[in-house]
This record gives sequence, structure tokens and C-alpha cells, in this order.
Amino acid sequence: MSKKIAVLPGDGIGPEIVREALKVLDCLRQEFGVAVETEEALVGGAAYDATGTPLPPETLELAKAADAVLLGAVGGPRWEPLDYSVRPERALLGLRSELGLFANLRPAVLYPQLADASTLKPEVVSGLDILIVRELTGGIYFGKPRGVRTLDDGERVGINTLIYSESEIRRIAQVAFDTAMKRGKRLCSVDKANVLECTELWREVVTEVGRDYPAVELSHMYVDNAAMQLVRAPKQFDVMVTTNMFGDILSDCAAMLTGSIGMLPSASLDEKGKGMYEPIHGSAPDIAGKGVANPLATILSLGMLFRYTFSDEDIAARIDKAVEAALDSGVRTADIWSEGTRKVSTAEMGDAVVAAL
Amino acid sequence: MSKKIAVLPGDGIGPEIVREALKVLDCLRQEFGVAVETEEALVGGAAYDATGTPLPPETLELAKAADAVLLGAVGGPRWEPLDYSVRPERALLGLRSELGLFANLRPAVLYPQLADASTLKPEVVSGLDILIVRELTGGIYFGKPRGVRTLDDGERVGINTLIYSESEIRRIAQVAFDTAMKRGKRLCSVDKANVLECTELWREVVTEVGRDYPAVELSHMYVDNAAMQLVRAPKQFDVMVTTNMFGDILSDCAAMLTGSIGMLPSASLDEKGKGMYEPIHGSAPDIAGKGVANPLATILSLGMLFRYTFSDEDIAARIDKAVEAALDSGVRTADIWSEGTRKVSTAEMGDAVVAAL
Ligand SMILES: CC(C)[C@H](C(=O)O)[C@@H](O)C(=O)O
Ligand SMILES: CC(C)[C@H](C(=O)O)[C@@H](O)C(=O)O
Repeated sequence: MSKKIAVLPGDGIGPEIVREALKVLDCLRQEFGVAVETEEALVGGAAYDATGTPLPPETLELAKAADAVLLGAVGGPRWEPLDYSVRPERALLGLRSELGLFANLRPAVLYPQLADASTLKPEVVSGLDILIVRELTGGIYFGKPRGVRTLDDGERVGINTLIYSESEIRRIAQVAFDTAMKRGKRLCSVDKANVLECTELWREVVTEVGRDYPAVELSHMYVDNAAMQLVRAPKQFDVMVTTNMFGDILSDCAAMLTGSIGMLPSASLDEKGKGMYEPIHGSAPDIAGKGVANPLATILSLGMLFRYTFSDEDIAARIDKAVEAALDSGVRTADIWSEGTRKVSTAEMGDAVVAAL
Repeated sequence: MSKKIAVLPGDGIGPEIVREALKVLDCLRQEFGVAVETEEALVGGAAYDATGTPLPPETLELAKAADAVLLGAVGGPRWEPLDYSVRPERALLGLRSELGLFANLRPAVLYPQLADASTLKPEVVSGLDILIVRELTGGIYFGKPRGVRTLDDGERVGINTLIYSESEIRRIAQVAFDTAMKRGKRLCSVDKANVLECTELWREVVTEVGRDYPAVELSHMYVDNAAMQLVRAPKQFDVMVTTNMFGDILSDCAAMLTGSIGMLPSASLDEKGKGMYEPIHGSAPDIAGKGVANPLATILSLGMLFRYTFSDEDIAARIDKAVEAALDSGVRTADIWSEGTRKVSTAEMGDAVVAAL
């Protein structure tokens, strides 16, 4: 039985990078008999322009019906003046929440071929391989009450609510421990338990869940210290687990340590392993349509899709290896180009991966 | 009329580093006729051990009555098992809130003498000079409701509240713009306005305040991007202003870019310029009592005290220059030592600064 991927190219460079991932998927179909259909839909600013809403009901239905979602990127300055409720980001948050994608996996891996791209000294980052597990459907992103209110004295106050229940913490902790078991068996949980009671509960529940994983070495770190340690000695980390907001900040910081965010995929999973897959970089409106964007993060996201949702480690590993082989052959998109390598377009990079497959 | 500094050495290395700052102050009294008295009091774990509370009423009274406060550091593993309400951090939060110290200034400066200490490549950080202005008495640190509650179904939820009023945002924005006017005239306000309504209000009010400072170039950045940009190209920043929680994370990240957090002071100011001054590093219990801690951040904090609370730029500049001169003479405490320099103790470093004065 054929599986179905909902493909949501989105805005900016989204369509061009997704196109290359679909090329790779085509090749997998033809060469390896992978039985996967795709269906495209509008999302983000593109959907707003066409329908007046960034997440049209048809798109949400398709995403719900499909086995997995592959997303390009959403957003851009054109839609920034829009009202909060219809901005492209709403689509992303809506998909996460409607599909119950509570577990966001964000690897920060330094490719040896791109070691120079980092702003950090080589000895600090060489071999870097961190996985950040970010809670994605709770916390301050979704907590209520929220909004801007006017007090009796006429002054306005802005309010958001950080809230986590034990069960929300428990399920993300389980994903983190399971992930750590498959890797280096070290998990660092990041909170601000010395100030925020909500994250005191976080620490308590994570510690509790840890009793079921005696093989995993669990540590706790305050978020300010975690930001420091990522800069000071990032290789001390294996898996990190944290809240939605802290994960947003730390995963971007960790990604940038590699110097090549055009290379980093992400997965957002529900309780059953269904997932949405997307590059961690944004829609890069400044280079959209020029054919220079790096499609590798999207192609690697397709790899994660096969690994986590289709449980097809064979195909996932093939994709990962083909990306490495493309890099080894010396081709580079502009963002990762350096003296001595060959600068190629988005499409040429996609072709190089297909050739390596 | 003589001015008074409340001196709160605190825990861990606190007492030893404060001792060196007092040596410097003594020298300023003797050589430059500076008329300043000091009075010491207990704070943090030391205060808890002696009195059962980390912020005894006498300490708070002294801090309120004094013209300024010089603090070492608080906290340590000994007090971590204690109940939330009496942990050393409560003293810090209590002082900030009771004294109305809403504006936290955290410089991240790379000393050319210590350029190698950074984990970042020299070209990325050489000449780095960022000032982070962090809101310190509001936001999620103090917002209510807060705490852990048990729902009807027996499940517990942890709650904290992010809340800012227009006037709280306005006054911190004014400090930030004023500070930017005295520096490079560029201010970057950091928020998460695409997700948190509270920080949409933040962005709106900061923009409004900016109209009174046409000479300052104002930009806005999302916090995840700010964390990335600090790693990618930190020299793009002059002054940054942000909320209490984001400031906690970003200022530690920025500090670590310099590789020498033993060098970084901070100031926390009220509406009238009264302030509490402390090194940004912690109490470092692992090296406490060994005489190896770096006292320079505390000595530079004394410099900030003269600059911001006593408006004595002459003495402030003398302190800053004496620290530079001590570094130029080649002495280094263990944390900043490198091949070719002379490793000295905490007291010897204090002496070197006094000699340079
Ligand atoms: C676009 C934005 C809503 C989103 C987030 O904050 O989660 C993005 O920064 C991300 O990390 O995926
Ligand atoms: C100790 C802690 C309460 C404090 C904070 O979070 O403000 C510290 O991290 C700081 O930045 O001064």
C-alpha cells in the first residue's frame, strides 16, 4: 500500500528547495521501488494570497489525512504588516497544534566537509553532533490567558502564560530518553527551575521519567548556563530536552554553531510517529527565486521522514549518504561555498544528490 | 558628605573577590581622596546559614539606606536542596525587586589582551563591545499567577505568567536609548512578537519611545534569530534591549563569546541611578577559598558603580585603565591564563590593579 506525503512548499525559497527533495523522492521511487505518493497544497503567505488564510482547511485536511508532511518554509516581509491572526507563522503553529506534533527533533551536526563554515574554532566544534528535543505544542506558545488588555487606568498590559502539565512533560521526556538510548545515552534537560515554578515541575517530572531509563545519564542545566555552555564547549552535549520557548532559542543557537544552517533538517512528531519535516532555516526571501538556495536541509528532512515516520532506516541512510557524497564531490551552494569547491545552483545540488543515490 | 556602599560578599568565591575590590576602593580613598564608606552584610547562603533567610531584614535595610550596593555572588550546591523560598537566588531577586532595580546593564567586551580566550575565531570577535540592557524587575520572573497546582483530575500543572505594562516597557526602553546615545547609537530590541502578544506590545512601545531618539538607529529581532546572530556575527550589535528572561539567556551567551566571563561586570539600576553592582559570573563553589578566582569582574563592577551611581567618570575610568594595565603587565588568574603570561592568585591580581592605580 502506497503511503502519502503532504507537500507544503510555502514561501520564499520554499518551492525551490522542496522541488529538489521531490526529485530525490522520484529517484527513490524509480530506483528503489519506494511506494510513496505526494500531494501538494498551499501554506503560509502563498496560501494567504490565494485564499485569505495562511492555513486553508483543505491544507489542514490534507496534512491530517497524509502519513507525513514535508514543509519548505513560510513567511516573508510582504506578510509582516498583516494582522497577527493571518500571518504565515500562524500556519506553522496551527499545523503543529492541530496535528499534535509535540516532539520537535533538531539535530545540530557539523559536517566535516564544512568544518570551516563555523564561526567557532575547529577544535571546539569538530565532530559536533547534538540533538535538541524541543516540546512543540505547549508552554508559553499556546498558554492562556494571552493577549493585550487595557487596565482601568487606561494602561495596556501584554500577557502570555507559560503552562505545562505533568503529562505534557512526561511524554516529551519519554521521547528524549528514547532518543538518547539510540545515541550517546546522555540527556541534559534545560529549565529555569531556580526562578520559574513551571520548570521546577519540568525538572521533577523529567527526573521521575528518568528512573525508567537507568542507562541514560541525566543532567539538568539552567537555560542561561546552557546558552553559555553551547558557546563554551558544545561537544559536552548529546541530547538536550527543553520547553517550547527555550528550545526555539537554544536550537537556533546550536544550529548556528555549525555555521551551515542550510544543512540542518528537523522533525516534528506526534504520539504515533506521524510527523512534519522541514529545514530549520527560514524562507530567505532575499534569495528566493534565484536558484541559489541550499536544498540539502530539505533533502535531509526527507531522510528524517523515512527514518521516523516510515521507519525505513535503509532509505533514510541512503539519503544521508547521498548528501555526504554530494559534498564529497566538491559541489556547494553559495551559503556553504569556500575556496577550492565548486559553486552550484539549487537544482544542480539536487542533481548531485540524485546522482549519488 | 561621604557616600555609603553596602557590601554583600555572599557565597563561594564572593568574599575573596569582593575583598580585592575593597582593596581597590581603599587605594582610591587614600590616593585620590574618594569619600566613600562601606558596610558589610550577609546575603545568600551565608545569610541563610546564619539567620535562616537568604535576605535578612538588616541586609535589605542596609541596601536600601546605602547609595549603592556591591555584591559578590550567591548560591552553591549546599543550598540547592533547600525549599524554593529560602534558596540563595531569592535574595538576588528580592534585592532587585525591593530596590526597584529595573535596568540591568551587561557589557560583553573582548579585551584584546585576552583575544585567544574566546571559542570563536578571532576575526569574528576581535573588538567585540556589546551592551545588553535587560529588564530586571518584571516579565515572567515576577508575573502572577505562578506556582504548581493540582487539577481536579489529580494532575499537576506548573504556571508562570509573562506580563509587561506599557510603562515598564517604556522606562527600560528609555534607558536603552539613552545608553545607545552614549555609545554607537544603534539599538536592537529583541522580542518574540511573532508568537507572544506580550512582546508584540513590547515592540510597539519600544518603537514609540524611539521617536524621541531620532539619532538612534532602532532595529527589532526575534529572540531565536538574536541567539543565532550572536554566534554568527556578534559585532553587528551595539546595544541590545530585551525582557528579563530573554536578557538572562542572551547576556550569558554574549558574555561567553568573549571567553572570559571572569572579566565582566554588571549594573542594576533604579529610576534614580542608584544601583547594585556585581560580576556576571557566579559563586564558583568548586574553586571557593582557594585564592584562584578572578577578581577583575568585581573590580570593574566597582568601576561601573562610580560611573553610574556616583557619576564619577574620572574614578571609573581610572579603575578601567588600571585593570587594563594589570592585564598589560602580563598577570593572569587561572581562568584567563595562557602560555607566556604569569599565573597569579586572586590577591596578587588585586595588588596588580592597586599598583596600576
Ligand atoms: C516562525 C516561528 C513561529 C517558529 C517558532 O518560534 O517556533 C520558528 O522560529 C521555529 O523555530 O520553527
Ligand atoms: C541566579 C538567577 C536568579 C539570576 C537570574 O536568572 O536573573 C542569574 O542567572 C542572573 O542572570 O543574574
